Amino acid sequence: MNRTAAHLALIGSYDLPYYAVIFTSQRTDIDQGYEQAAERMLELARKQPGFLGVESARSEDGLGITVSYWTSEAAILAWKQHAEHSSMREQGRATWYSAFQTRVCKVERAYAFTAL
Amino acid sequence: MNRTAAHLALIGSYDLPYYAVIFTSQRTDIDQGYEQAAERMLELARKQPGFLGVESARSEDGLGITVSYWTSEAAILAWKQHAEHSSMREQGRATWYSAFQTRVCKVERAYAFTAL
Repeated sequence: MNRTAAHLALIGSYDLPYYAVIFTSQRTDIDQGYEQAAERMLELARKQPGFLGVESARSEDGLGITVSYWTSEAAILAWKQHAEHSSMREQGRATWYSAFQTRVCKVERAYAFTAL
Repeated sequence: MNRTAAHLALIGSYDLPYYAVIFTSQRTDIDQGYEQAAERMLELARKQPGFLGVESARSEDGLGITVSYWTSEAAILAWKQHAEHSSMREQGRATWYSAFQTRVCKVERAYAFTAL
């Protein structure tokens, strides 16, 4: 995604209230297919009913934050129970992450700014 | 912060429900005191009543996500209205960020994992 596309995604607004899943994680040094798995999860998530968007950043020290946005808690639960996603979570615990936390939130207010 | 400290912060749990402010931003290429300002904002935020914690990641392409956690919406509002924070936001719009979005959320559920 180039910078302009990133801008547009950043200022994307969804109808309030909607839901956010904040996934904060610390990567191990083990790769073993991590990038491919992360791409695959994004591809699957985008196809899920109720998916609105996703933003992700990871610092060089391995701390990452991915926030996905959803229309409802039911959509989040369905994604959580998706078979391939569940199996990938197991692999994440075993291999890719030394720690993580998942938080399910209701977004109540949102303010966007763009210099474009 | 070393990895162990990062782990402990990552799995830190707060009494539910609490509030999260998701700040997603795209940096410009202009430095002009950005790092010092970001450090100062963290230092100030940590002293605010109702502050619980903060997590931050920025990728090499300049996309960053900072999530701060708070006991109440009133605590978030007080921080928003803090004079030095307000003035820094103006500088952020003028100089450091090409786009950003701030979302205020109520955290309803949280799940932590650690391999430690």
